[in-house]
Amino acid sequence: MKNPLTSDFTIGFLGAGQLARMSAVQAFRYGMQVAVFSDRPEDEPVKFMTPHSYSGSFDDVNSMMEFAECCDVITLENEFIDSKVLRELRDRSGTPIYPSPESFALIENKLIEKQTFENAGIPVTPYSLIQDEDGLKNFGDKYGWPYLLKSSKGGYDGYGNKTVQNEEEAGSAFKKLGGQERHDILAEAFVDFTHELAVQVARNEKGIVVYPCCETVQKNHICVAVKTPAPVSSKIQKKAQELAIKATETIDGKGIFAYEFFLTSSGEVLLNESAPRPHNSGHYSIEGCVTSQFENHVRTVCGLHPGDPSLIKPSAVMINLLGTQKRTAVIENAEEAIAQPGGHLHSYGKLQSKTGRKMAHYTLLGDDTEAIYNKAVKLTKGIEI
Amino acid sequence: MKNPLTSDFTIGFLGAGQLARMSAVQAFRYGMQVAVFSDRPEDEPVKFMTPHSYSGSFDDVNSMMEFAECCDVITLENEFIDSKVLRELRDRSGTPIYPSPESFALIENKLIEKQTFENAGIPVTPYSLIQDEDGLKNFGDKYGWPYLLKSSKGGYDGYGNKTVQNEEEAGSAFKKLGGQERHDILAEAFVDFTHELAVQVARNEKGIVVYPCCETVQKNHICVAVKTPAPVSSKIQKKAQELAIKATETIDGKGIFAYEFFLTSSGEVLLNESAPRPHNSGHYSIEGCVTSQFENHVRTVCGLHPGDPSLIKPSAVMINLLGTQKRTAVIENAEEAIAQPGGHLHSYGKLQSKTGRKMAHYTLLGDDTEAIYNKAVKLTKGIEI
Repeated sequence: MKNPLTSDFTIGFLGAGQLARMSAVQAFRYGMQVAVFSDRPEDEPVKFMTPHSYSGSFDDVNSMMEFAECCDVITLENEFIDSKVLRELRDRSGTPIYPSPESFALIENKLIEKQTFENAGIPVTPYSLIQDEDGLKNFGDKYGWPYLLKSSKGGYDGYGNKTVQNEEEAGSAFKKLGGQERHDILAEAFVDFTHELAVQVARNEKGIVVYPCCETVQKNHICVAVKTPAPVSSKIQKKAQELAIKATETIDGKGIFAYEFFLTSSGEVLLNESAPRPHNSGHYSIEGCVTSQFENHVRTVCGLHPGDPSLIKPSAVMINLLGTQKRTAVIENAEEAIAQPGGHLHSYGKLQSKTGRKMAHYTLLGDDTEAIYNKAVKLTKGIEI
Repeated sequence: MKNPLTSDFTIGFLGAGQLARMSAVQAFRYGMQVAVFSDRPEDEPVKFMTPHSYSGSFDDVNSMMEFAECCDVITLENEFIDSKVLRELRDRSGTPIYPSPESFALIENKLIEKQTFENAGIPVTPYSLIQDEDGLKNFGDKYGWPYLLKSSKGGYDGYGNKTVQNEEEAGSAFKKLGGQERHDILAEAFVDFTHELAVQVARNEKGIVVYPCCETVQKNHICVAVKTPAPVSSKIQKKAQELAIKATETIDGKGIFAYEFFLTSSGEVLLNESAPRPHNSGHYSIEGCVTSQFENHVRTVCGLHPGDPSLIKPSAVMINLLGTQKRTAVIENAEEAIAQPGGHLHSYGKLQSKTGRKMAHYTLLGDDTEAIYNKAVKLTKGIEI
């Protein structure tokens, strides 16, 4: 790969949502050009940030070739593409892709992901591949009800997931998720957890850095807030960070990776999910850390040394600002949040708002996590989008 | 003006250089779209950051109308346009322009600028309008040789300026700068200064904030480094900040403004130049301050509350990285500077490098200004562009 600090060096994003947008901003900062390939017409956050905008299908390598040939390196902003497609795209275009298709193949399917990490000695939540109604019943008998059914590919923010309380619900959810016809369906035991934790890791041939362990606050399977550092013992924080590093090394990851963990009531740290890209749990790092997850995304896939992930203040909290209604997007009643010293609003430039859609976020830094969390909740409570 | 947090809100920059680039990045962060108008084909830093790119002449309002009509607000990144043109553009397009043409008219011409600030009681360097050879001689007789000849409009980074040692040099420089035929020519007394200081101010109807007082280190009239806070007494720092606020209020400034001062050997603080835009002396604020000059540029011209300008660490230094040769731009030997914790490289995306051209900068934060200055100089010494 040529020197990424060459003036016409172009980084390409597969996916044009807010994660690519926030990484693209960091690419600009290094003088790079940005290209974007989108399979969704509603994916506008990056389209207005570059003249190099392409669209087509994630299933059709031909539709991606022009994009790939315009790039010096390609990276991911979501997991909706298949690693085989990625491999073909790389091999035909000659453009490197990081995280590599080989790393991605180890985690793209939730079943293979569990096996990959389990084999490396990383504790994961109890799971089983479900092939039929008997499987649904047996899993409930073994681990208890309720449990979680998940599509092994393509789920996010609660889509592709379903909590099932009994055999009847399990049977109907199994069908709704596509049975075995689309992707494998996985059952996951409900974990009796006290906290949901997350850690980001940036890694390439020049080095590896690990971000602080944060807590994600979830409502209806959607992350609504993040507290950093997580309000758990430093021993637990360190454990999660160690597992995150081990997981990244296990898949020989090059890029930025995020790992979500359950801290169980008995003090275990179990890996729940991984993502080969920047993650909602790391948005606080834009202002909260010396080097944000987005900057380290760009640095690591381009072969630059990963930057210092240290917090610049003792605490950082991030509040997701979800659409409150269906309309042309506009953020209202944000004056107080914007005027707050140390408060930082980010909007993703999506043209249309709808209820629950991730539209923006708000970060507040300070000295005491709970105090700034309460303040940030209060400051953002009246915001309408 | 409509709510700037509306999804299709577009901020337009007159000028497409690195200042617009770094402001555009902040506009993206608020979900805005960016448009750019350039009168120089070599001005590429923003062109690759938006599909809304226009070009034409700063003298021809017609060539700027399409750009203006695509924008919800327009702002400046340089002073090469005439305030009368700005006024006509605003009045014909109906698009607001900040800083306003009326504010800009008070400082666009160096002669009027001096009078504006002098009348407000702000001490400025001794100066005189030069109309002929007698004027050149009389100024030297009164204030001594050498002194500075400046074109009243269009100068930057030493262009449009000339230090003259005697009558003969003065006569030849007067002709070279265009005599009275292009712009007024100004003589400025050489000030016996110990430090060159700079301060940025962000102001709009919601509030006013002032940045720390920094020192600019100049070589051949080009700023090569900035140290924040300036290594002068807090009384002097405060004096410069007060004058900067007063100057901004004097011109009823809306936007971000930068002021350069001389600290004389007798302890006076004299206003040297002002700029109605982000300024090289404030680049350190990207990582150095809670809210950068670029973010406050966007905030203030869009009517958002100005953000906290406080330093996040005790000290910040910025090193300008100038082109070292004529070639396709590429930054070499920057590995150590990038790997340094707390070090931040910014490249402007210019396609061509030439000796002395501003191509990139490097910021280092820390606890002791001189220590990090020496470190930053060392880390960037071998960089070639």
